[in-house]
Amino acid sequence: MSEEKTTNIILFSGDYDKAMAAYIIANGAAAYDHKVTIFHTFWGLNALRKDEPLKANKSFMEKMFGKMMPRGPEKMGLSKMQFAGVGPKLIKNVMKKHNAMPLADLIDLAEEQDINLVACTMTLDLLGLQKEELRESSQYAGVAAYLADAEDGNVNLFI
Amino acid sequence: MSEEKTTNIILFSGDYDKAMAAYIIANGAAAYDHKVTIFHTFWGLNALRKDEPLKANKSFMEKMFGKMMPRGPEKMGLSKMQFAGVGPKLIKNVMKKHNAMPLADLIDLAEEQDINLVACTMTLDLLGLQKEELRESSQYAGVAAYLADAEDGNVNLFI
Amino acid sequence: MSEEKTTNIILFSGDYDKAMAAYIIANGAAAYDHKVTIFHTFWGLNALRKDEPLKANKSFMEKMFGKMMPRGPEKMGLSKMQFAGVGPKLIKNVMKKHNAMPLADLIDLAEEQDINLVACTMTLDLLGLQKEELRESSQYAGVAAYLADAEDGNVNLFI
Repeated sequence: MSEEKTTNIILFSGDYDKAMAAYIIANGAAAYDHKVTIFHTFWGLNALRKDEPLKANKSFMEKMFGKMMPRGPEKMGLSKMQFAGVGPKLIKNVMKKHNAMPLADLIDLAEEQDINLVACTMTLDLLGLQKEELRESSQYAGVAAYLADAEDGNVNLFI
Repeated sequence: MSEEKTTNIILFSGDYDKAMAAYIIANGAAAYDHKVTIFHTFWGLNALRKDEPLKANKSFMEKMFGKMMPRGPEKMGLSKMQFAGVGPKLIKNVMKKHNAMPLADLIDLAEEQDINLVACTMTLDLLGLQKEELRESSQYAGVAAYLADAEDGNVNLFI
Repeated sequence: MSEEKTTNIILFSGDYDKAMAAYIIANGAAAYDHKVTIFHTFWGLNALRKDEPLKANKSFMEKMFGKMMPRGPEKMGLSKMQFAGVGPKLIKNVMKKHNAMPLADLIDLAEEQDINLVACTMTLDLLGLQKEELRESSQYAGVAAYLADAEDGNVNLFI
């Protein structure tokens, strides 16, 4: 069977370190010629956000969510050892020393490798985010599309 | 091969948002005719708890656990943005505005769709919970039963 | 097809309870003759650490990480109900009462069952950990090795 292998990752978490793990696995799988999809849902959607705020017609609640949630990978915190914001700086410092790719670069690499970066439409709607706030390359789909991919997937992970 | 596809989710987390994700995927998979099982273990067991306390013979420790852990979906907190209890109210408020199903309704729907709601017997024993405290439709099994399902599963997730 | 079934678990989390879940599933799968691999990455690497500190040439940052991260399973905290360190003691107390295996014993059992305990080389490098600090039975590999195992795996989980 010479079928294409597939890797489908649900990125639920908005933590910098978990998103790093997701993108490292995804980029690795793409390098091994897997068809790779990262389905960003709930807090994971923040990885696809652009840095700049959107001046849009939003309800009060939507504005609040928009402010409270990190705008893009560089604003995300750690799942452990957050230490009031010192942790992420420390980690990024160590990463630089070891020439490890920061999350933003891992996402750019994923884009270059044609990994499908999917934003969950339900979450988008729920948190009042708009397509203009996300990366241009983002695709939009729901749980049905995820399942269609995953039911024949080789590596399915929830992160 | 016209075999039935299967989705097996381990729900380890006791967070409202993670449980929501688990039940949204599960209900989606059931709608696509997958045989779906949610194996509730550790804190995930709280999703199956009834609201009312059980007057039972429990040891001091078991009573303490029983009190500290959330009784059912409506008492569960968020994995992020908990904000001393304000976060969950905010999220539920937003969900209502968008006509999204609250967790309790997603669990009812899962029951209606004949999704297997399994409670991990080891956790039950460990935390001193009793079958009377859980939903009537709960099934009871251990890791062996999970593995028997998952080893032929299409979509296996740990949430 | 009488092929050997395989279970591949990525242990990302450094939480005592999540590591327990990972090792319980892994030991169960090994008992069912699966070929089992636990790939320890990020905070999950702490499960493989020995109790004693290593007197080694480390940079200031590496020493700091080494100190801040738990040395081995008995030092790890809970994902929920940590309560300033009381939670883990409570859980271990309950586990002893119910004759449940503590994490350290579950790891020993995994070793006896020939489960592959793999340490992620990238994390090792990043956190400045050295092989002498980990269990003797630890194997060393990167994301490529994980993917080679997982793409044909039956049960793939990210914990």
